[in-house]
Amino acid sequence: MTPVPDRPVAVDLIRAKRDGRVLAEADIRWLIDAYTRGQVADEQMSAMAMAVFFRGLRTDELAAWTDAMVASGRRLDLRSVPAPTVDKHSTGGVGDKVSLILAPLVASCGAAVPALSGRGLGHTGGTLDKLEAIPGWRARLTAAEFVDLLSTVGCVICAATDDLAPADRKLYALRDVTGTVESIPLIASSIMSKKIAEGTSALVLDVKVGSGAFMRELGAARELAGTMVRLGTERGVRTTALLTAMDVPLGRAVGNAVEVAEAIEVLRGGGPEDLVTVTLALAREMLALAGLDAAGPETGPAAALADGRALAKFREMVAAQGGDPDAPLPAAAHVQVVPATESGWLRHLDALAVGTAAWRLGAGRARKEDPVSAGAGVICLAKPGERVRRGQPLLELRADQPGRFDGALQALASGIEIGAEPPAARAPVIERIG
Amino acid sequence: MTPVPDRPVAVDLIRAKRDGRVLAEADIRWLIDAYTRGQVADEQMSAMAMAVFFRGLRTDELAAWTDAMVASGRRLDLRSVPAPTVDKHSTGGVGDKVSLILAPLVASCGAAVPALSGRGLGHTGGTLDKLEAIPGWRARLTAAEFVDLLSTVGCVICAATDDLAPADRKLYALRDVTGTVESIPLIASSIMSKKIAEGTSALVLDVKVGSGAFMRELGAARELAGTMVRLGTERGVRTTALLTAMDVPLGRAVGNAVEVAEAIEVLRGGGPEDLVTVTLALAREMLALAGLDAAGPETGPAAALADGRALAKFREMVAAQGGDPDAPLPAAAHVQVVPATESGWLRHLDALAVGTAAWRLGAGRARKEDPVSAGAGVICLAKPGERVRRGQPLLELRADQPGRFDGALQALASGIEIGAEPPAARAPVIERIG
Repeated sequence: MTPVPDRPVAVDLIRAKRDGRVLAEADIRWLIDAYTRGQVADEQMSAMAMAVFFRGLRTDELAAWTDAMVASGRRLDLRSVPAPTVDKHSTGGVGDKVSLILAPLVASCGAAVPALSGRGLGHTGGTLDKLEAIPGWRARLTAAEFVDLLSTVGCVICAATDDLAPADRKLYALRDVTGTVESIPLIASSIMSKKIAEGTSALVLDVKVGSGAFMRELGAARELAGTMVRLGTERGVRTTALLTAMDVPLGRAVGNAVEVAEAIEVLRGGGPEDLVTVTLALAREMLALAGLDAAGPETGPAAALADGRALAKFREMVAAQGGDPDAPLPAAAHVQVVPATESGWLRHLDALAVGTAAWRLGAGRARKEDPVSAGAGVICLAKPGERVRRGQPLLELRADQPGRFDGALQALASGIEIGAEPPAARAPVIERIG
Repeated sequence: MTPVPDRPVAVDLIRAKRDGRVLAEADIRWLIDAYTRGQVADEQMSAMAMAVFFRGLRTDELAAWTDAMVASGRRLDLRSVPAPTVDKHSTGGVGDKVSLILAPLVASCGAAVPALSGRGLGHTGGTLDKLEAIPGWRARLTAAEFVDLLSTVGCVICAATDDLAPADRKLYALRDVTGTVESIPLIASSIMSKKIAEGTSALVLDVKVGSGAFMRELGAARELAGTMVRLGTERGVRTTALLTAMDVPLGRAVGNAVEVAEAIEVLRGGGPEDLVTVTLALAREMLALAGLDAAGPETGPAAALADGRALAKFREMVAAQGGDPDAPLPAAAHVQVVPATESGWLRHLDALAVGTAAWRLGAGRARKEDPVSAGAGVICLAKPGERVRRGQPLLELRADQPGRFDGALQALASGIEIGAEPPAARAPVIERIG
């Protein structure tokens, strides 16, 4: 009931957004800055986030919001890096170890990949958690180390420093506990503010679609991808997106050490077909954005996987961050096999079910401060489209404590479908936006 | 992305409401209780309140929400009071001193009026602030004193004790700073939880409609009134509502001491016609709900105003709470007159403009902890429908500090309309719901 004073205050901006009015650029800048400095309270920002969930942000509001998040911290300058920089971001899936392969693969083809990455929360894994399964490897680098390794090795996967888009870090933690994660403008500004602050010149987005993804519907995934591509492009980052399938796990391994092992399999020229297909599609997008797509089949990414260049780059990257690429990966102490309950075609192996099982086995964390088990996870011994016999092992569950198997089995209960007909074939790459 | 655990947590309930699902009674009870105990964070409750703003609450959800707020504290037991209890609640307006008249008036006609009241915030005044202009009068009573005075005097106007609906106190303060005040289910549950906890058997709601009211549109006011009437009735409190006009101030005085003086004028059988009309309409509603409407014109509320019974009861009520009914009321040190800028019909005198002016003169507070000036306020020397001559005094502004006049004059700038035609006549009582 209080009339609006001369200067907007947080409650006026919340009410404006709530009532569908457009926020001015200066007001958004003030809001994000004041929130970062603690002058706008968490309870005000969560109400604003919920109002944005319902009302959305217009293109100009989203741009101002993203710019304000970038401006809340440091923006890295990668102009001293001799190769063209290009990064990839995935919206998160089950068995998604593509980053581990892609960074050295694309670097081995001549680009520089500045991959600031995150940790897993819930049923989707995190790239840093996976790499930490390698003995000695460290995720935390200084900004100077980051730029130096990017110049000398050509690829770095590490944690973002605390001074990079601190507004996003604070807002993301708030959204996580206030039911305001699932908003396309808030997701887009969160992802893009970090990537813009990271300093990459180009970015390929891997927007996952399906039961194991954040976006379950193609329409929403398309909207998110389009929003981020526009936002990046307008902010000077050449950006494209691939929508890729996430109804079943990508590849066969879901966990930490098991995913590193499968990534190395691909880097050795092998590995599951769906994983190789998605990885190569993303690699070609990245190289095209970096201006390195003129290379013929002999020097392209498929060749770099086949001839060992990508693997050599991976070993170099791991060693540069203290990891021992020859050390054995940790293994879980306990293994349990899930057999097929009938004979027929394996029609479906639900990504969310398998991701939740791996999480409960110890591969993921329920809270940010929880540790993860390096050895825990799920190996999919069969994938949809294969024939199975009753009693044949379908999944191998791995855990450090045997008490974890029950919860995993519960999660899997309705996630496995065997039938008389083969499932429809699905392409792993759905469409390109950009 | 975290799958729902066996027991609902705050974030699951927020997401459920956000996505338009219905909350179970047990979940609402848990939420309100956990919030009151500090186990659900302010940032979660504000996000929930914003989700409720957009999605609403179904009848059964609203009932559970209200019951949970009542259950968060003490519920008074007024069964020992010999007379039938009936209270009135106004949604707040400008110059609304009706409670001051109504409590002793209805008590003088045989009912008991347990009027737990609030303070003003923003441009609408508070009943307790007004009565505190009377030297010696105290707003804080113990629950025992409250019940005792209700039995002996027949009416009490005092502050609610802290143990009455504490969930509502906490939630209201949160809504005030998070842009979540303007939600019909949240307003209805806030008002009704306090009145149910107060223990009254019957309740008449005065839902104000117009520029100076919380509800500016008739449709919204009707919805709020209907929601509260159903809620009270189903909870065992006989409840009806009157929608009354709040486009112009009620009566002529807006402030604290000036409103007490005008209330006494009505209790003496005089006073402005609109104020008397609204007061008598509400008094008749209250007496009807209390089962005391069989009285003829000689014993009804109009007679009680005319013959001094209501005034005697007012003096008794004030004295019982330490006030001196014969002491002179405080007066502001400075007076400034606002003259008519042209001759013609006074067509409009905007309630919000006058309320804001009185607030800026010192009669109201910007923050809960601010003091109010007893003597500050506005006297409307002319009301819409009267002819005025250029230069004739329209308003008298009163303040303790002369520096306050400028802000008040600014607030009034567009609130006074003089024209060649008289305004359309408007009935002060719009309709009855119940």
